[in-house]
Amino acid sequence: MKIAILTFEGFNELDSFISLGILNRLRSKGWSAEITSPSPHITSMNGVKIQAQQPLEFANEADVVLFGSGIHTREIARDEKLLNSLKLDPSRQLIGAQCSGTLLMAKMGLIGTLPACTDLTTKPWVLEAGINVIDAPFYAQKNLATAGGCMSSQYLSAWVIAKLAGEAAARETIYYVAPTGQKDDYVERVMQVIQPFL
Amino acid sequence: MKIAILTFEGFNELDSFISLGILNRLRSKGWSAEITSPSPHITSMNGVKIQAQQPLEFANEADVVLFGSGIHTREIARDEKLLNSLKLDPSRQLIGAQCSGTLLMAKMGLIGTLPACTDLTTKPWVLEAGINVIDAPFYAQKNLATAGGCMSSQYLSAWVIAKLAGEAAARETIYYVAPTGQKDDYVERVMQVIQPFL
Repeated sequence: MKIAILTFEGFNELDSFISLGILNRLRSKGWSAEITSPSPHITSMNGVKIQAQQPLEFANEADVVLFGSGIHTREIARDEKLLNSLKLDPSRQLIGAQCSGTLLMAKMGLIGTLPACTDLTTKPWVLEAGINVIDAPFYAQKNLATAGGCMSSQYLSAWVIAKLAGEAAARETIYYVAPTGQKDDYVERVMQVIQPFL
Repeated sequence: MKIAILTFEGFNELDSFISLGILNRLRSKGWSAEITSPSPHITSMNGVKIQAQQPLEFANEADVVLFGSGIHTREIARDEKLLNSLKLDPSRQLIGAQCSGTLLMAKMGLIGTLPACTDLTTKPWVLEAGINVIDAPFYAQKNLATAGGCMSSQYLSAWVIAKLAGEAAARETIYYVAPTGQKDDYVERVMQVIQPFL
């Protein structure tokens, strides 16, 4: 399973790396989640310089595409050349977004009339893009999903695993990353969020 | 507040970046949490190449030092030259560890007879180092803390904030990163874990 974690200049580390860390737990099943960016090097919102693992075009052939968020998303949402280089297709790809990533999905016409989740800062911009923003951590329909609030990347990742490897694999993966001594409760809470959308 | 997030070759992205993302939310109060490493470039356990923000010695002058975890921690725990270059002092620094980072704190004599948390994989090695490992997500005494399971880095970060900026600041920060629509409950759950240790 090839997973593109779309990560742009000024990215939020929580959004990109929580998904990357959780989804790569399935490496032994042939999964690979990679930082996918328009430039070879990117700097996070807190100044961490990282090297992209895949160019932007990798997203077009990936099985899963997740839009991370960041502090420059409004500028990126106006960059038509960049957005046009993405040829995503929800009929053959799972596509999800996190926080301000929801704005990019909206601008690309991937949300349409679906309810969508985002963070409180991005909310006005997503509303401005004509999207029905809901006060929920996670929403999905068929192959499209959005999540709101940094830590909801756990839900986005669990949904991807449940959709493509089954609920048992999602439970097992969240169990691994969950805090020690709280694992069963933690798994239940995550699964309760995504179960209505499976 | 200067915070060193000790990050080694083969590091776990969840551990280093969840703390970094959460603690830098207090940037407007003069806080700065930085990836601190023995070499200028490091590669994560899932192949993400990043640039260190600070050299290892930065930890010696930091107000807070957090040991992240990774897949090569056992080798690092045997690297006396590296460990000896760290001159940490719990009388003037908050020192915490996450998962296999607990092994490094143990080897440096920072845990002693305190109960400690770690992940299930590292547990046998920490036991072998003579430490009393408990089945809990978080434990702290005075300026020392350990956390177990990737996602417990939320607790470690919240504890650092509560200790140095107060409980209200910890609540506010966790509220910001918590999933939309679940924020109050999420904050309560995090605070319940750390409150006995404040």
